[in-house]
Amino acid sequence: MGVEIERKFLLAGDGWRAAVERTQAMAQGYLNDLDVLAGGGQKASIRVRIEGEAAFLNIKSAQAGPSRLEFDYPVPVEDARQLLDLCVGGLVRKQRHYVRHGGHLWEIDEFEGENAGLVVAEIELDAVDEAFACPDWLGAEVTELRRYYNLALADRPYSQWSEAERAGADA
Amino acid sequence: MGVEIERKFLLAGDGWRAAVERTQAMAQGYLNDLDVLAGGGQKASIRVRIEGEAAFLNIKSAQAGPSRLEFDYPVPVEDARQLLDLCVGGLVRKQRHYVRHGGHLWEIDEFEGENAGLVVAEIELDAVDEAFACPDWLGAEVTELRRYYNLALADRPYSQWSEAERAGADA
Repeated sequence: MGVEIERKFLLAGDGWRAAVERTQAMAQGYLNDLDVLAGGGQKASIRVRIEGEAAFLNIKSAQAGPSRLEFDYPVPVEDARQLLDLCVGGLVRKQRHYVRHGGHLWEIDEFEGENAGLVVAEIELDAVDEAFACPDWLGAEVTELRRYYNLALADRPYSQWSEAERAGADA
Repeated sequence: MGVEIERKFLLAGDGWRAAVERTQAMAQGYLNDLDVLAGGGQKASIRVRIEGEAAFLNIKSAQAGPSRLEFDYPVPVEDARQLLDLCVGGLVRKQRHYVRHGGHLWEIDEFEGENAGLVVAEIELDAVDEAFACPDWLGAEVTELRRYYNLALADRPYSQWSEAERAGADA
């Protein structure tokens, strides 16, 4: 379907809240073995997501880093509810806030439940080295840190992280 | 989407060939870890299949036996080609022959490539104990034998089976 290029950052403050255009509640889980990023046999993650009255099945190639092959298909919400029961690990729940800055649309995920306290900002780019305006609420980049993957949060939620891990250290 | 109830048999002869209504070439692979049936963490298989000019993404709950929860979604063939590259293990290729007998439609899968030599007949039923007319070309039932699952054939193809396994023994 396409190649997804995405960079992920921590937040340096709450300045983004005043610029939120829209907020969407999301619940998602993974059908694949959660050690897919640890170099097991699998080459893709398979995600089930319900967002409001819509639901999607999403497949991404499993390499770490900013660029991945991605496929996204709408499915009936009732199917998605049953599929979430077939998922491995915990469900990841979040509020996704959309914030426009300097011509780009940022997705700011404010996690809930076992991942409450974690907030990350994502930007989708057309090229790995594409320039973008850096808002003053943007913190350290964590694109390469696997524990920030939603997939990893289903396995080991933020509530189980050490202080060093929460600080964004490369632990 | 629904519950699939399916029974699977070996073939006792070639008598079915004269009754084939239609034959469809299929190539399929699995995105999930192939030990899903061995009691690992995963609860579902995720299959990609191309059949002629159509392609489907299929998700089945992973318990062994005749009854499983099943979801099937059409996807673009070009997507399916890329998804097959993300599959684990070998691709399973087969000719599926459709044969009508006593009011039921049988699917007779004649495997190719690494699984050449294996032929199995499947019947889809509305209930686990539903009666059906038994054609004289039907051999031993193998519904409960995991090595006959297409998923298992992607991991350990028929060419690697022992003589006892090929005879349909519960090995």
